Amino acid sequence: MRTVGARLDKQLGFILEIDKLKHVFRKSRLIRSERFENDAEHTLHLAIMAVVLFEYANEPDLDLPTVLKMILVHDLVEIDAGDTFAYDDKGLEGKYEREREAARRLFGMLPDDQRDEFIRLWEQFERRETKEAKFAAAIDRLQPMLFNYENEGQSWKEHGIASDRVLRRNASIGEGSAELWRYAEQMIRNAVSRGYFD
Amino acid sequence: MRTVGARLDKQLGFILEIDKLKHVFRKSRLIRSERFENDAEHTLHLAIMAVVLFEYANEPDLDLPTVLKMILVHDLVEIDAGDTFAYDDKGLEGKYEREREAARRLFGMLPDDQRDEFIRLWEQFERRETKEAKFAAAIDRLQPMLFNYENEGQSWKEHGIASDRVLRRNASIGEGSAELWRYAEQMIRNAVSRGYFD
Repeated sequence: MRTVGARLDKQLGFILEIDKLKHVFRKSRLIRSERFENDAEHTLHLAIMAVVLFEYANEPDLDLPTVLKMILVHDLVEIDAGDTFAYDDKGLEGKYEREREAARRLFGMLPDDQRDEFIRLWEQFERRETKEAKFAAAIDRLQPMLFNYENEGQSWKEHGIASDRVLRRNASIGEGSAELWRYAEQMIRNAVSRGYFD
Repeated sequence: MRTVGARLDKQLGFILEIDKLKHVFRKSRLIRSERFENDAEHTLHLAIMAVVLFEYANEPDLDLPTVLKMILVHDLVEIDAGDTFAYDDKGLEGKYEREREAARRLFGMLPDDQRDEFIRLWEQFERRETKEAKFAAAIDRLQPMLFNYENEGQSWKEHGIASDRVLRRNASIGEGSAELWRYAEQMIRNAVSRGYFD
């Protein structure tokens, strides 16, 4: 239905389109469940985590609405580009270009000012340039680690990922929050001693 | 794993607990899909809608982070209390008490300052007292109407809901956004003429 102004029409077209995020599945299962998590569920979890864990950001004057907006838009590109597993080196090749194309199409459905804002937020998140992006990206990396720990190493084991690779891959959490990275490092050490890695 | 401070332990305990939101299913199906939407997906959709449609709030000086936080916490109580269909008059009896009990348990997992903040946000949302709550609640009511329209009246037809009931039930959208309510009213009129109500 499109009857009101062209601006609202575009915005609602985008809002209906992003329903597809609920059909993009990740490699992590829900906690103590067989079901894989989808991108919408993952994104919602990150947004709540960002609110609850905001105090652990390295920088004292972070802008919460910017952090939340970044998190809300960061995975929408996967509607077109699909989920790329964090340890899939082959899949990671060309990921930025695929996702950039997706950002152009998806955010291009919005009015120009919002399109430009969303593309900027997505690029800042990808590049971890700003303090808000560093914190948002830290939360994005912490969440699957927490899940894997709770699921006794499910996706690490299923994909044969070693603990030192997890530590290398996720060290950038420290750029957003030194305190959360200390916690995550300790968690990986505990996971090793509990046999959560093959 | 609990090794760092007691405060972070509590926060992470809460963060793991709310994974259960992904198992609470609603009465609306995803767009052009057989699958029912869960509360995590619904909440994520509302948060993005609030960002995109923020300009349509009646009040000019709305606080976006408050709106987003309200949306992020508003359905967490359904982890314990379950989803109550908006047109289930019997189910709506005692809903507030059930959800209040759930809010005490769930938000009580957090440190006291965050517990108090989340309970306050949830109560403000429920009562639609503040301008932020009115806008957040408007978005919460608009989303299933958009879905039902796209799905040619799926949940209205499955539950025998008449169009005048939908109009009565959702008129409070106008308290948060007169413009979005004008749009929604027109959408219901179009739905009637297209046969989306039995």
